[in-house]
Amino acid sequence: MTALEMSKLETSIDAVQGFLTAGVDCGLRNKPQPDLSIIASEVNCNAAGIFTTNQVKSAHVQYDMAVLKNDPTKIRAVVVNSKIANVCTGELGKQNTATMAALVAEKLGCESSQVLVMSTGVIGPQLPMDKISRGIDEAAQSLAPNGWDDAALGIMTTDTRPKKASIRCKGYTIAGIAKGSGMIAPNMATMLAVLVTDADVSVPVLNDLLRKAANVSFNRITVDGDTSTSDTVLFFANGQSGKKIESEDDVAAFESALTELCQHLAGEIVRDGEGATKFITIEVEGAPDDHAAWQIANTIACSPLVKTAFAGSDANWGRIMAAAGRAGVEFDQMKANLWFDCGMNGMTENALQVFKNGMPTDYEENDAAAIFAAPDISVKLQLDEGSGTCVVWTCDLSHEYVSINADYRT
Amino acid sequence: MTALEMSKLETSIDAVQGFLTAGVDCGLRNKPQPDLSIIASEVNCNAAGIFTTNQVKSAHVQYDMAVLKNDPTKIRAVVVNSKIANVCTGELGKQNTATMAALVAEKLGCESSQVLVMSTGVIGPQLPMDKISRGIDEAAQSLAPNGWDDAALGIMTTDTRPKKASIRCKGYTIAGIAKGSGMIAPNMATMLAVLVTDADVSVPVLNDLLRKAANVSFNRITVDGDTSTSDTVLFFANGQSGKKIESEDDVAAFESALTELCQHLAGEIVRDGEGATKFITIEVEGAPDDHAAWQIANTIACSPLVKTAFAGSDANWGRIMAAAGRAGVEFDQMKANLWFDCGMNGMTENALQVFKNGMPTDYEENDAAAIFAAPDISVKLQLDEGSGTCVVWTCDLSHEYVSINADYRT
Repeated sequence: MTALEMSKLETSIDAVQGFLTAGVDCGLRNKPQPDLSIIASEVNCNAAGIFTTNQVKSAHVQYDMAVLKNDPTKIRAVVVNSKIANVCTGELGKQNTATMAALVAEKLGCESSQVLVMSTGVIGPQLPMDKISRGIDEAAQSLAPNGWDDAALGIMTTDTRPKKASIRCKGYTIAGIAKGSGMIAPNMATMLAVLVTDADVSVPVLNDLLRKAANVSFNRITVDGDTSTSDTVLFFANGQSGKKIESEDDVAAFESALTELCQHLAGEIVRDGEGATKFITIEVEGAPDDHAAWQIANTIACSPLVKTAFAGSDANWGRIMAAAGRAGVEFDQMKANLWFDCGMNGMTENALQVFKNGMPTDYEENDAAAIFAAPDISVKLQLDEGSGTCVVWTCDLSHEYVSINADYRT
Repeated sequence: MTALEMSKLETSIDAVQGFLTAGVDCGLRNKPQPDLSIIASEVNCNAAGIFTTNQVKSAHVQYDMAVLKNDPTKIRAVVVNSKIANVCTGELGKQNTATMAALVAEKLGCESSQVLVMSTGVIGPQLPMDKISRGIDEAAQSLAPNGWDDAALGIMTTDTRPKKASIRCKGYTIAGIAKGSGMIAPNMATMLAVLVTDADVSVPVLNDLLRKAANVSFNRITVDGDTSTSDTVLFFANGQSGKKIESEDDVAAFESALTELCQHLAGEIVRDGEGATKFITIEVEGAPDDHAAWQIANTIACSPLVKTAFAGSDANWGRIMAAAGRAGVEFDQMKANLWFDCGMNGMTENALQVFKNGMPTDYEENDAAAIFAAPDISVKLQLDEGSGTCVVWTCDLSHEYVSINADYRT
């Protein structure tokens, strides 16, 4: 896609043709803030979804998987509540999810089987259906083309800011909202996100492109290694722009824009990770294969010792090597090389090599400290075992993370 | 082994026949505290060792593995330094390890191939061999039967207290010292420990019993999930008590005492885990098999979200279920049950069931809070998928952990 065909990514969402959204406060939180959102389409959408691999699945995950399996070509809306995750809630939890879909369907004049549901928050409690029901009433009345800001606020939990973005392409728009910011780990899907487009995209193409984009964005981030029970990414295409995504060129352009959008939202989730003060890019090269590269990059990104060193701006590269070594991938430490650099776009000419063929280099500690003082830090580990590569994005582990999570329910 | 045959475990070590020990301050630390220890035997020992599975191995691990492979029947001593781990130090690091062994051998009048080495501390720097050499001189001169307290101090890093224990059995003694307290994760060996006995035990039996005991002690603890590059457990038997461990009964009694000793030392490592304020026992029952039970128990024990909830005394059992669900083991959440209790010896009649067949029970939050306020907490997760069981010990993740690790090298 050339620059002429795709405008710059915007961190706001104006209208996307045929989509109406709302976010309302129905009293689920202890503070005034939207806590229930609806993203609806005026016409049926083709839809695709990616869901958590956790064995313990939210009621909404089980429900949505069944709905999309049944008929992904007539989806009209998704309703999202925050504060309570509706996980480990047994049969009543399942009924409550179905009731949420039915209430929204009634308002929109469609079938329950055309409405998806997402919930996020504390595991265990049942949803207060009286509040939820009033919230759905109010949200349905508020639905408007420009309701994206409220919708993005309504899906937040410990996020400190809403995450939204859009890209206008030639003839159509792709937009999305997402939330983090704990229980974030690779391996689909690491958060909640709703993506929409007014392009006309078939279900197989939608599924394929969503998976590809997620694999290089949402599936490459980790805040704390804890894959949630509720992770869900939904993608709706309502075709209202009239632009059909069919030709090879159109599909490639669409994929490029979608990938940029997903990487932006994924990056925003990491930047707003619980207690995060730094954005860290970890690149592994020369692993036996791509999966091995991911194992190593992810083990480094999840290591509490590595993450606390980043929090302390301590260029303690030994912990990075130690984490790499326990990732379950065989490699020869005497052939390993390690670099640090500022920024998030890989190594520049200013990159500092700290480890070379099994030995520390004679780098200056001051130079390493200068890199570690930056808000964006890149790490590159090069092995000599094959052609596997992977990039993972993560954040540091700070005092604030502990504070947030020691007191989450209080 | 009956109570008559085995005295109670002591948290001190008097003399063990034929062993001489010392711990001296050779100036590796920024504060006055022993930092170099020697544990020596007056006569040759049978020896066994277990080493880290990390691909990035300390120079001492590579050296010791080679020595024990060559001849484990003539070991005379191990020398241990703290503060610097001698990891990622290339050929010079290997030479320095060999030099340490040679210096000790010279003092003891034996061959280098009879001396083992252990190092623990920061990864990357080379050992200051002038200080190490002076330390070995001084330690060799200080060797005495009652040097165990100094020896235990000399191997500490961020440990806040030395870890030592002994059991006097009928006719012989088993004793050991260990250190934690970060980079602690199951999967051998999660720390440094030196175990000694004056019983006469053959190398195959020593190896077998050390592996068995480690598998239910050192390999069942985790502080932060980070398997170190240096983890080593050594076990020396010098036969000086005259008691030969050969008959089935003697072996069983010896194994029982060794297991108790190792479990005590492992427990002490968890209790003194970096920033630890709570001791947590996690028991999984009814998993498809024992390995699956370990996967689940270990995933729970390593989850930052679970560990911060313990730090906050928050009975947030949903995070335990979520961690169990991402452990890579298939199970049906609708058949899962979860209990909490005070103490470290599993469930008592006071156990509180919080989750039953996929639903929260109607437990009182106050009762859960009372359990979570205790310093020792037990968690039991029961699945209905098979007969696999596992117990893992861990600690909470507190602000203090972050402080210790954000500033470790400064």
